[in-house]
Amino acid sequence: MFQIKTPYLLFLGAATDQLAAKTARGINDWRPENVIAQMRLEKCQADLGIKDMGLQEAWDNGARTLVLGVANRGGIIPSHWIDLLQDALEIGYDIANGLHNKVRDIDEVAGLATKLDRNIYDVRHPSETFLVGSGEKRSGKRLLPVGTDCSCGKMYTALALEKEMRARGMNADFRATGQTGILIAGSGVSVDAVVADFMSGAVEAITPAHNDDHWDIIEGQGSLFHPSFSGVTAALIHGGQPDALVACHEPTRTHMRGLAHQPVPDLGELISLTTIMAKIVNKDARFVGICVNTSNMEKDTIDSYLRGLEDKYSLPACDPYAQGTASIVDTL
Amino acid sequence: MFQIKTPYLLFLGAATDQLAAKTARGINDWRPENVIAQMRLEKCQADLGIKDMGLQEAWDNGARTLVLGVANRGGIIPSHWIDLLQDALEIGYDIANGLHNKVRDIDEVAGLATKLDRNIYDVRHPSETFLVGSGEKRSGKRLLPVGTDCSCGKMYTALALEKEMRARGMNADFRATGQTGILIAGSGVSVDAVVADFMSGAVEAITPAHNDDHWDIIEGQGSLFHPSFSGVTAALIHGGQPDALVACHEPTRTHMRGLAHQPVPDLGELISLTTIMAKIVNKDARFVGICVNTSNMEKDTIDSYLRGLEDKYSLPACDPYAQGTASIVDTL
Repeated sequence: MFQIKTPYLLFLGAATDQLAAKTARGINDWRPENVIAQMRLEKCQADLGIKDMGLQEAWDNGARTLVLGVANRGGIIPSHWIDLLQDALEIGYDIANGLHNKVRDIDEVAGLATKLDRNIYDVRHPSETFLVGSGEKRSGKRLLPVGTDCSCGKMYTALALEKEMRARGMNADFRATGQTGILIAGSGVSVDAVVADFMSGAVEAITPAHNDDHWDIIEGQGSLFHPSFSGVTAALIHGGQPDALVACHEPTRTHMRGLAHQPVPDLGELISLTTIMAKIVNKDARFVGICVNTSNMEKDTIDSYLRGLEDKYSLPACDPYAQGTASIVDTL
Repeated sequence: MFQIKTPYLLFLGAATDQLAAKTARGINDWRPENVIAQMRLEKCQADLGIKDMGLQEAWDNGARTLVLGVANRGGIIPSHWIDLLQDALEIGYDIANGLHNKVRDIDEVAGLATKLDRNIYDVRHPSETFLVGSGEKRSGKRLLPVGTDCSCGKMYTALALEKEMRARGMNADFRATGQTGILIAGSGVSVDAVVADFMSGAVEAITPAHNDDHWDIIEGQGSLFHPSFSGVTAALIHGGQPDALVACHEPTRTHMRGLAHQPVPDLGELISLTTIMAKIVNKDARFVGICVNTSNMEKDTIDSYLRGLEDKYSLPACDPYAQGTASIVDTL
């Protein structure tokens, strides 16, 4: 498995708003120690609130990888970035790209990287070969967040758990399964881009056997209840063989993301179905907490809602962003 | 979606035993009307019991596609087949290949096919682009066999059901999701070779909206209980949105195929978990029968075993090979 060199220079291009730079923001929020500066083009409307530097200045300050941490329409790499990417390679940078389109497909950039022996990481496109998953029990512990829907806080939950566990001196590593997570961790696999036969094997590859006291905190993807992506979630559960599961939920959502016809299940359905699936590969699998994205809730209803979940499911319930995950880590 | 031209000339190469020609045998068993002859090289140890013909004779008798229906060590295409493939293209044949290695990767064959405007179908390697699955309800009916394990008779069950339904004048089409099935049907997608994000979309593509009285009989793959392939099965359930499910089982198996550590679930577990998953996209989904592969059972125990299943699960239970699937089709 590759490991992207740190620290990073975060390239925001001409991002049209803050949301377009959310990949870069995620990196800076969760791994500020890996970030030297941001680099913005004219008319960039995003700002991470950190130093702006050019390629040479950031290099001189220690940056070793240029990260394309910005969403473009259609995931396309604009042609006027090519000179800049070539300059970066000449200076000494590797390039890590979170966009759909591959930097490796730009011949003049890929050719220069080969000539100069630089690495290009198109993190949405796994380049490794994986084995078919075996489901054999591995040493070490694993935790997986699962959601009632896509995009309800599974990556955030995993990173918040890793942070809390590390703060307590626990031996925990976030294991990335999507492009933003990979740029945060510097390693991982975009599981949704792996060929079906090898999905669970890819998850096994990023969560190998480890010390008995070590926790892999695996980034969740999709939902068993989301018809578009349930297969990816099944592979994460069976490849990750989690000991601990965390249920993630966004209570104000009226239907599954992108599917107006598809209702969101309740937390009880999520816990019940996921437990059956997880016990197929790990008979000790159990839920250890509930993480709620409360950002769209009325402020004065949040506390009673969370206490209601705790009573109903006998699990600690929290908003990992607003309250942290201490109550969940207490149970591990 | 492509449609491979029929009828076929089945090429068995120098198959080392009957088992090596099982793809060709499957085609001849289920679609004898699509088969003109077999073609065998010196030392071939397999024999389908049909006429042997060379390329020109079979062409003159109507054959239009040369089918590589034989398993080779590592799925490799031997170099001495290349002349033969080129001769076939020159005569007028398309080529359909069930091996892992692609005929399209043999430059001199691919180039000649392009020049002569012939089709090459490497059926293990989907060449279409699929959308992300939507899970939206489509018209028409769908049936999916699911298994307690891989390789326990799901394709056979689907084909036997299609045959029985067609014999009764029902409007039913087998929908192939693996290489042998594709060569039998002349169309389909090897779902286990599709990129994860598009698995359920690929299943939706091969089971589109249809007349209300039409049944898609979908070839099953993997098992929700098989850690290597559960994601593929989940995508088949959610992409196929089956109205009817059939439980497939091989009662003498002591562990999951290829995984000595992994126990085989009982039929009750299979029915329970699959029903939960299927109702996520089709609230009317229900099991309609049980198909048992009895080939390894003691003959005098089969009948009482099947009657025991019928009592326990209140579903018709049969061996589709030995007894046919009439009792299941009666319920549709």
